Amino acid sequence: MNIVEGLIKGDRRALARAISLVENEDSSKNEILKGVYTHTGKAYIIGFTGSPGSGKSSLVDKLVSVIRREGLTVGIVAIDPTSPFTGGAILGDRIRMQEHTEDKDVFIRSMGTRGSLGGLSRATKDAVQLLDAFGKDIVIIETVGVGQSEVDVVKNADTTVVVLTPASGDSVQTIKAGIMEIANIFVVNKSDLPNADRTRTEINLMLDLDNKKKEWRPPIISTISLTSEGIEELWEELKKHRQFLEEGDRLAAIRRERVKREIVDYMEHIIKSRLWEKISGTTLFEKTIEKISQRDLDPISGAEKVLERVNLDNHEFPE
Amino acid sequence: MNIVEGLIKGDRRALARAISLVENEDSSKNEILKGVYTHTGKAYIIGFTGSPGSGKSSLVDKLVSVIRREGLTVGIVAIDPTSPFTGGAILGDRIRMQEHTEDKDVFIRSMGTRGSLGGLSRATKDAVQLLDAFGKDIVIIETVGVGQSEVDVVKNADTTVVVLTPASGDSVQTIKAGIMEIANIFVVNKSDLPNADRTRTEINLMLDLDNKKKEWRPPIISTISLTSEGIEELWEELKKHRQFLEEGDRLAAIRRERVKREIVDYMEHIIKSRLWEKISGTTLFEKTIEKISQRDLDPISGAEKVLERVNLDNHEFPE
Repeated sequence: MNIVEGLIKGDRRALARAISLVENEDSSKNEILKGVYTHTGKAYIIGFTGSPGSGKSSLVDKLVSVIRREGLTVGIVAIDPTSPFTGGAILGDRIRMQEHTEDKDVFIRSMGTRGSLGGLSRATKDAVQLLDAFGKDIVIIETVGVGQSEVDVVKNADTTVVVLTPASGDSVQTIKAGIMEIANIFVVNKSDLPNADRTRTEINLMLDLDNKKKEWRPPIISTISLTSEGIEELWEELKKHRQFLEEGDRLAAIRRERVKREIVDYMEHIIKSRLWEKISGTTLFEKTIEKISQRDLDPISGAEKVLERVNLDNHEFPE
Repeated sequence: MNIVEGLIKGDRRALARAISLVENEDSSKNEILKGVYTHTGKAYIIGFTGSPGSGKSSLVDKLVSVIRREGLTVGIVAIDPTSPFTGGAILGDRIRMQEHTEDKDVFIRSMGTRGSLGGLSRATKDAVQLLDAFGKDIVIIETVGVGQSEVDVVKNADTTVVVLTPASGDSVQTIKAGIMEIANIFVVNKSDLPNADRTRTEINLMLDLDNKKKEWRPPIISTISLTSEGIEELWEELKKHRQFLEEGDRLAAIRRERVKREIVDYMEHIIKSRLWEKISGTTLFEKTIEKISQRDLDPISGAEKVLERVNLDNHEFPE
């Protein structure tokens, strides 16, 4: 495959093209992903999440400058919320990454949230793999929001940073279930605002409440992205967490779990399409829906009945 | 089944018990759901979603008073964000539903967001069906947040109300993809705050941008839940939307789509557990994960290879 070869040789246009093909579910997608796989596994993957307006983008921007000073190359996958009406990114904060647009060793890719939830998480994982195979030392996933979708997206990261601000409405109390659990590092950004201390105290309290004994207690870093305050410290903590994971086989275990989830995802995806292919438009399926709609049959029994008549292992169709 | 009989006869304790059993994935879950299904389909289902702090709960509280004055009975399924550390609801705003606790014809059930995303959407759907079978005229789903999880939850509703406030950070701009599309009615709550007009203008602008010609343009209702202002109007608009759906076969079509999604969900659930049952712990699966972790095999080829050796239609295990 020409595009895979190009990507591995370091051709930026091949990389950009590959990400697009994969994101758009092109028919070449599987071939591309299969082709690059043996070249992956070298990049270190960092995830950033937090509420809109927490200043994550500027923070990542400043962090990239610090990372670049050490000579490491960087790839960024930024998830932007997309408006269903305009079809384009609505926050448009990608503009501020201009600082690095001249830098060939920083590759930035924005992804919309047009698709389904599962689709977004998959597209992010795929883009990360392409950046990894391309040879980026550090790959950053940046996602806006603190919902379940973000939790799923950052599950692709080795180290996860949760960004909060002292601003109202962004209190620790409103942080959704799941997000506190995935944080390896907390950042209180805009820490020059009033209430920054309270935010730090709230996080500490939550960490204290967590009675599961953990080997790693997430540090809380105060930053001001405008003045780059705290950014060096954040990078140091990121390196510490990486070191922590690389001791023993923690990182290997995390990545093995990721592989397991990935292969199960693919298998589920394959059998789900096989199922859909076999039932869609069949009289059996349509009649069952009709019966359930009429309340002559319940959905569970309906599902069981249709499955009894569908052969999932070969490609014969029912009826 | 005793519990199903009790529920259908109107025993509130049987209802509460049934919801708990279903929410906790008890082994009796499928029997309960199968048992009540023929008694469902009569309730009208309204979904409420919006950012935390938008005052949805008070709004629903006031709306219930208006609905009760017409003699209709009400069931409420309220999704509360749960803290992963304390295990309990953190917003605790259920407290304010006290106005209706003495009213036997209002049944309120809070659900945590502990489980997985898909699990929550499923549990909500199940609880709605139980309230429907119990005989509630109106069932309200209330969910905190504006992410994909909320979109999935309110897909179980016939009419969806999106609640916004003029408060900062709750601007229409930050509303996530998908949420604007599902709104049948917009509410600008706390409309006595400054910027309420701007919020209304922004929603109107977004609706104007939506070039898909639609038969129903979502109305925008201004409310102040504290003084009940606008609540009567909201109820009138809800009735109008219901009437709109009941004209022709719009409601039937929506519900048919829901049945279709439901039966497919059940089928996918069944085949996914069948798959997991067959591969979990097998040498085939473990060796494949190992090979992928070593980069000797890519995950897609690995998934394909495992599936080739698994027989999904009968219950023989590979190796």
